[in-house]
Parts: sequence; structure tokens; C-alpha cells
Amino acid sequence: MEDIKKGLESVIALETSISYIDGINGILEYRGYNINDLSEMPYDAVSYLLIHGELPDEDELLEAFSGQLRAEREIDEDTIEFMRMCPYGVEAMDALRTAVSYLSHHDPDMSDCSLDANLRKGIRLIAKFPTIVAAYYRITNGQEPIAPHPSLPHGANFLYMLRGEEPSELEARLMELDFILSAEHELNASTFSVRVAVSTLSDIHSAVIAGLSTLKGPLHGGARLAVMRMLEEVGSPERAEEYVLSLIAEGQRVMGFGHRVYKTYDPRARIYKRLAREIADERGDTRWFRIAESIEEAVQRELVEKQGKPLCPNVDFYSAVVYKYLHIPPEFATSLFAIGRISGWVAHCIEQYADNRVIRPRAKYVGKHHPSR
Amino acid sequence: MEDIKKGLESVIALETSISYIDGINGILEYRGYNINDLSEMPYDAVSYLLIHGELPDEDELLEAFSGQLRAEREIDEDTIEFMRMCPYGVEAMDALRTAVSYLSHHDPDMSDCSLDANLRKGIRLIAKFPTIVAAYYRITNGQEPIAPHPSLPHGANFLYMLRGEEPSELEARLMELDFILSAEHELNASTFSVRVAVSTLSDIHSAVIAGLSTLKGPLHGGARLAVMRMLEEVGSPERAEEYVLSLIAEGQRVMGFGHRVYKTYDPRARIYKRLAREIADERGDTRWFRIAESIEEAVQRELVEKQGKPLCPNVDFYSAVVYKYLHIPPEFATSLFAIGRISGWVAHCIEQYADNRVIRPRAKYVGKHHPSR
Repeated sequence: MEDIKKGLESVIALETSISYIDGINGILEYRGYNINDLSEMPYDAVSYLLIHGELPDEDELLEAFSGQLRAEREIDEDTIEFMRMCPYGVEAMDALRTAVSYLSHHDPDMSDCSLDANLRKGIRLIAKFPTIVAAYYRITNGQEPIAPHPSLPHGANFLYMLRGEEPSELEARLMELDFILSAEHELNASTFSVRVAVSTLSDIHSAVIAGLSTLKGPLHGGARLAVMRMLEEVGSPERAEEYVLSLIAEGQRVMGFGHRVYKTYDPRARIYKRLAREIADERGDTRWFRIAESIEEAVQRELVEKQGKPLCPNVDFYSAVVYKYLHIPPEFATSLFAIGRISGWVAHCIEQYADNRVIRPRAKYVGKHHPSR
Repeated sequence: MEDIKKGLESVIALETSISYIDGINGILEYRGYNINDLSEMPYDAVSYLLIHGELPDEDELLEAFSGQLRAEREIDEDTIEFMRMCPYGVEAMDALRTAVSYLSHHDPDMSDCSLDANLRKGIRLIAKFPTIVAAYYRITNGQEPIAPHPSLPHGANFLYMLRGEEPSELEARLMELDFILSAEHELNASTFSVRVAVSTLSDIHSAVIAGLSTLKGPLHGGARLAVMRMLEEVGSPERAEEYVLSLIAEGQRVMGFGHRVYKTYDPRARIYKRLAREIADERGDTRWFRIAESIEEAVQRELVEKQGKPLCPNVDFYSAVVYKYLHIPPEFATSLFAIGRISGWVAHCIEQYADNRVIRPRAKYVGKHHPSR
């Protein structure tokens, strides 16, 4: 057991039937369905698929599931009050993490760890994440939170709670799609930490909080925020090449490129790119899209062609462009990622509970030994 | 990469110089010092050792570190107020997790991720954990929280905050020792989840919250609670054998025996056993100790000798006896574990930040593939 697997790269920690990644050919499937096909469905159907393992094969099933989610969208006044008490500058991810921990105290199924109770708790979390994030967004902008809409789809309802008015059709579709594309990605670090927590038979709220704690990091969910800041810093397509060259000269990496698993174009990035172009055209304001495209071209020329580095845009790159057009502030980008990812986390909790073994690796000791007294 | 490492058993995930375990010979060292030697030191010295890598070699160093910890013991009225608002029945671990998440919002170093800031944040967490747990204990008993004592040692101060009076010398020593023995244990599940969170460069509060979320599980920190409940259920030494036989007949495991890493007597269990006997004798009430010893004898006879199972008491077994004598309610046992473990978590955060790689294993897909449309 002397071979060290730093970062657990390529170590197979478990079996899953939740998602499949072919990193060589750039294929991503949720429960065996290609992400391109899923991107045209409602988020609720994808969430149902992830959690129950099959698409809702009858309209009634999907309607019932959507009904459950919509019925659980509201959060209580205490949780809103607690968010009002957050000092200026508290990050959305921290507020979300505390709110979820706080919500667990009031969950009617808190002490029940049966599958049914876990499904109910999971549905509550999926339903309430957008409400928490939108309420915190409003509060940090000095506005009153807006109660969830009783009938709008998942993505449209989130934008409605942010703005107080219903989004355009394209905006609603983009938001829905963003949540779908963020919903699941095998054993990424946050999902893995969810499974580590569950492997001790801890509860689903605790596991999701471990996921939020891990997603927050700039090398994971926080990367989207960094891409948004980069787009703002570059400011115009003409400055992209100079910006990329200066990063290369300083030995720094360009945010939003490369992935541990994908050795080709991330299939999610392709979809985000197509939609980023679509909304740029609809808006008649292509600046953010052209900045991103110019950065991609400069990376392709300077790093891929000249230096042979296998860099493609990852999921964070064009999603950041989409967020710019949706007027999402960078500091909320990671919490939007969490709104999507929660369905995957719930699915992984249920899968881990069903066939559990404590996740407990070893470390190699490389320190000194002092003589015992 | 087709070999599945379920539970990551025997996989070496990283190098560490924080602790060393020899599971065959039953040896545990923190930073190269045998746990038997460390068990005679103050918790503050062990905490310093874990975090800084060396024992404080001058009295002034230890005094300065203890002074920092004592100066950070207090928690603000808002945090206490939030705990008062917890509904009846909220577990101590959940209240602690929410309180730590809440405290992060007010940490003056929140947005600073330098080593110095991480050390300051770590010291605050180590100092405040006992205060949070004791305050929640008092609140759930309908009593007013007691402010931390300005000069008592770590363990004695905790018992003082629980009770409102200073503990006996032996009680204080036992509490100090419990925190030392709980402080660190290589890549146990909670410490591993701390490192997974840090590996995305998330912040130290988030990482510790991931640790709490994982420690809570009954297959990890929650096991001590289960042993305490077992001791209560057995009730008298005479009933121990019958109890063990009935568990065996039902195919259930006996709580507090066996360990993933130790194939012999857990060195911490030996120390706990000696001290459990000592306090039982001092009290002139040996019942809890004799119940535990009778369970150990029955397991030895029925499972080790007759069935050849390599079962020894683990850390949770005699620690539960010690907690009975310290009048710790079972439902607080896991949160006491966390009070000890936080020093190890902080040390692992600092080690992971210093030489980081995102911890992101793979999964083997075993589900169906649906044809793409």
C-alpha cells in the first residue's frame, strides 16, 4: 500500500449508476441519458431522473414531482430574519450553508433516516435552495425578498424571485438549462465529500452542508466566479490576447480551461457556448460573448498550438458568459451552481446509503519519530 | 483503473506528518510522539504540537498559546441567542454545526486565507468549540449559559461551563485527557472530508463544518453515543453476557469493538480503560466500569475465542464509560469528540493548503446507457 494517489487521481472509489463521463470523447450522461438530450427537458424531469433513476414516463409522475417541489419552495420568516442579520460582505455560499444548517433544525423528518424521509428531505432542499439564494440576493441589495411563484418552472421562478418580474422566454430557458448542466458530475470534489459524510451514516442535511463547504472553493464551484471577474477585467474583445499573453508570461493559468477528467471539449461547455451566443444575439450586445471567444482563440493559439497543452474551455467558461447576460453578480455564481448541483447530491446520498462502506483512506507518514519516554 | 477501492480501504491518499498509526502493533503517534507520553500533557500543548509541528519547547511558548486560546473562549450574545431559538430535540452536533457556520460570518479574518489568518481562525475555533457545546447543554437543560473561566485549563473549563462549579482534580484530568485522545487520528472519515473541502481551496470554517457533518454519523463520532446507550441498556454487569449473546444470535455487531486500522488493542482504549477504572474506584461506584469489562470479557470469549474474530475495544468503548462517570449525557458525546478533534482538523487544513491537489477520485459507471436521440 505504498503507492500514493495524490488527489486520488484515477482512483475508482465506488460504483455508481448516476452519471457516466467519457473524458476522452467528451460525453456526459445522467443515468445513461446524454446531456444534450436532457438539456431540452424541464429541470424537474432531470431532477426526478437523477433521484429516481428513470425519467418520469408519464406526465402525471412529472406533474406530481413538480407539485411536491413547488409546494416546498417557501422558507420560513425565521430563516429570512437570520439572513437579514448577516453582516455586510458575508458570501452567498456562507449564508446558504448557514441557512441550510438552520433549516435542518426545523425539518419535520430530521430524526427519520428512512428512504422515504430522505426523499422528502431531498425534495425540500432542492425546492428551497433557489428561495434561499434569491432572498439573500434581495437582502444584500436592500430589497425585500419575494415569495416563490406558485407555478413558474424552476429556473423562471428563480429569476422571478431575484427580480420581482417574470423573465423572458429565453432567459427562463437559459436559467433552467444552467441548473440542468450543473446538476450532476460524478465524483467531483463536492459530491465526493457528500458521499464521505453519508458513509458514516450521517444525515442528508449534514451531507449537503459538507457538499456546500467543498463547492465553495475557487478550484471547484468558485471557478465560475473567477471567470466572471476575468471577463470584467478584460473588458473588451480587443484586450483578450494581451490579457492571455500576460498571464502566460507570469506563469499563471487562464481560468475556465482544462479539466481533471475531460481531455477534450467539455460537452456542457458546448451547450453553454451555443446559448451564450443566442442570448448575446437576442440582446444585440455581443460584447461578453466576443470577449470569451477571443480568450478561447488566444488560449488555442498560444497554449494549445504553440505549447501543445490540451486545454479546452470547461463548464465554468461559457456559463460565466451566460451569467453576465442574466445579470447574475459574480459573487452569486457559486450559489447558482449549488442550486443546480443539489439534485445530484441528493441522488448520491441515496445511492451511498443503499450500499454503504465508510470512506476512510490511509495516509503515508513522512514525519519524524521521537523516542518514547 | 478498473480496480474498485470501496471505502478507499488501504488506499494512500496523501502524505502527512501529523499522525502515525501502526495498526498491527497498536501504536499511535501525534507528530512522532507516542500517545502515551502525550496523555500526560495539557491539551494546549498537544494542540500546539499538532498545529505547529513541534512541542512548545519553552514555557513561554505554551503560555502564549494558552493565552491566545483563553482570550478567544467567549462567544457573542447573538450566537447564544440563536441556540436559544433551536427547537426542542435539535442534536448538539447540529446546533454546533450551525453555530460554527454562523460564527464564520463574524470572523474578522473571514476573507483572509493566509497562513497567519488560518492559524488565527483555527485558534478561535479550538477555543470556542467547548463554549458553544457547554452553552447549548445549559440551554437544553433550561439553564443560563456560563461564561468561560479566564484561567482554568481546557478540560476543566469545559466542565466548569457545563456545571457552574469547578470539577475535581481527577475529573479535570479525565476531561483534558479525553480531548487529547480525541484530537487526531490520521485520515478518519471526518478529517478526510476536511481535507477534501480544503483541496478546493475552500476556507477553514467551511472545512471544519464538513468535518462536523461527517463526524456526526453513527459509524464515526456517533459510535460513542451508541456505546453509552448500550451501557445503559445492559444496566448491570450480570446482564452483559446475555446481552452479547443475544446480539450475536441476531447477527448484530457489538458497539465499540473493532476498527478499520487497528488489528489489536487500540492504544487510546487502553488509556481510557485505566482511567475509567480510576474514576470508578474514586467514586466508590464501579458499576459502569464493571458492565463494560463484562461486555469485553463476553466479546473475547464468544467472538474472539470461539469465532476467531479479531475484535478489541476501540476508542469509543471505554471513553463511553468515562463519560458516564463525568455525567455527560449520551446525546452530547459526539460534540465532545468534536471539541477534541478540532485541533487535528486545523492541523490537516494547514497541511493540505501547504501542498494541495484537488481530491477528486473517479467512479465506475454500472448503470444503463440509453441511445441518444
